[in-house]
Amino acid sequence: MKGMGRNTWVVPGGWMPLATTGREPEFTSHDKLSILNPSVGNARLEITIYYSSREPAGPYRISVPGRRCRQVRFNDLVDPEAIPLDTEYAAVIRSDLPVIIQFTQLNSGQAFNAVMGTIAFPADQFLSCT
Amino acid sequence: MKGMGRNTWVVPGGWMPLATTGREPEFTSHDKLSILNPSVGNARLEITIYYSSREPAGPYRISVPGRRCRQVRFNDLVDPEAIPLDTEYAAVIRSDLPVIIQFTQLNSGQAFNAVMGTIAFPADQFLSCT
Amino acid sequence: MKGMGRNTWVVPGGWMPLATTGREPEFTSHDKLSILNPSVGNARLEITIYYSSREPAGPYRISVPGRRCRQVRFNDLVDPEAIPLDTEYAAVIRSDLPVIIQFTQLNSGQAFNAVMGTIAFPADQFLSCT
Amino acid sequence: MKGMGRNTWVVPGGWMPLATTGREPEFTSHDKLSILNPSVGNARLEITIYYSSREPAGPYRISVPGRRCRQVRFNDLVDPEAIPLDTEYAAVIRSDLPVIIQFTQLNSGQAFNAVMGTIAFPADQFLSCT
Repeated sequence: MKGMGRNTWVVPGGWMPLATTGREPEFTSHDKLSILNPSVGNARLEITIYYSSREPAGPYRISVPGRRCRQVRFNDLVDPEAIPLDTEYAAVIRSDLPVIIQFTQLNSGQAFNAVMGTIAFPADQFLSCT
Repeated sequence: MKGMGRNTWVVPGGWMPLATTGREPEFTSHDKLSILNPSVGNARLEITIYYSSREPAGPYRISVPGRRCRQVRFNDLVDPEAIPLDTEYAAVIRSDLPVIIQFTQLNSGQAFNAVMGTIAFPADQFLSCT
Repeated sequence: MKGMGRNTWVVPGGWMPLATTGREPEFTSHDKLSILNPSVGNARLEITIYYSSREPAGPYRISVPGRRCRQVRFNDLVDPEAIPLDTEYAAVIRSDLPVIIQFTQLNSGQAFNAVMGTIAFPADQFLSCT
Repeated sequence: MKGMGRNTWVVPGGWMPLATTGREPEFTSHDKLSILNPSVGNARLEITIYYSSREPAGPYRISVPGRRCRQVRFNDLVDPEAIPLDTEYAAVIRSDLPVIIQFTQLNSGQAFNAVMGTIAFPADQFLSCT
């Protein structure tokens, strides 16, 4: 499974509401990364959080063991500092081993769930053709 | 239609809730793969399921006839073993013929449907100039 | 704007419910293609519909004028034949000029809207690195 | 972080409903771009809006400071002209510096939220070998 995955991923559209409803924890509002590490070794990731009107925060360090997946809620990233609610943010995730990342956003702020999901953007460098 | 599609696809963010509501089967909670095999021959696929705290399971074997599509619910993958509910998982799908795969997640656990969908991640190494 | 877009796109996961609710037409259940033709000339597209247990149907012919967008509901594709409801299908779209295509699915079959959307898969041939 | 991101992005499927419900502003219907500028310098973007039956409008000019993200609602693009509601449109976004863009669509026109999101289509020609 050599080479499967990428080392750099971007989530441009983070935002978590102040309000939440529903059973804890599966129906509470959250932004979530779903990460697969298909390699044998342990993958060490660094997440940088970008904001609209202040300097970026981080790195937030997480790891994903080899041949394991992990789902990480942005709400749970508190070291070096929590991500404020009702605040626009973006995330860049770098990994020392290739991984694959999906972004899911669940908003239960109005007594129903609105959910969206997308494969994150694989941002490894490309060469221009022309 | 030579060459259309890819041989390896990844779904990083699987999760199926314990709860479900609504008419069977179209509004019951599910994670689903939608696969198109545009070639003439029969495509044989192997799905490996990755978990957060145990060894991967599989392979789950399915096939898609030539010039046919097929939608497969993860809930229905029971051989060699069922995928537990309320458990984070990821899937890697390998096919002997190039296919195209979409991932859709329907959560009807709170008396409404929350749905998200995305083209899966095509993980083949590639060189492109388009 | 030479070269922007692709000539072949795939939507693997089509499905339209029998049931629908809500104001016509914007909240009735539908699968939809959103197409942008950024070139100056008129783009001619051919859509082939694939099923799980019968031969593909088509081509369905549509056109998108130069520097125009167009949103096409699969429900409205009736020539050469309508796409049946409650039936899994996939679509391959070929265009003589490069275009960009998004797939959106609205399901209002349970007195609420469940919507998902994704950029379709750009299936133009790639060369393998290895 | 040299080279991360792309210079041209496409959103094919814009549409904003006439109706909206819910608390202002976070639950009112909107189409939204989420942009990350990971470079040090200020990124200047030009958005062109394409319609189904008239000439394109724009450019709409926005900027994103270096190492900042920005979320822009299409509803707020009013110069040179507002984008009409209940009207199909597409958007092409060009940036002088590489950025990463996500498209999110929230429709609260029926007393609930229907949301979908996707990474926009990166339309630069590219040569990659990853």
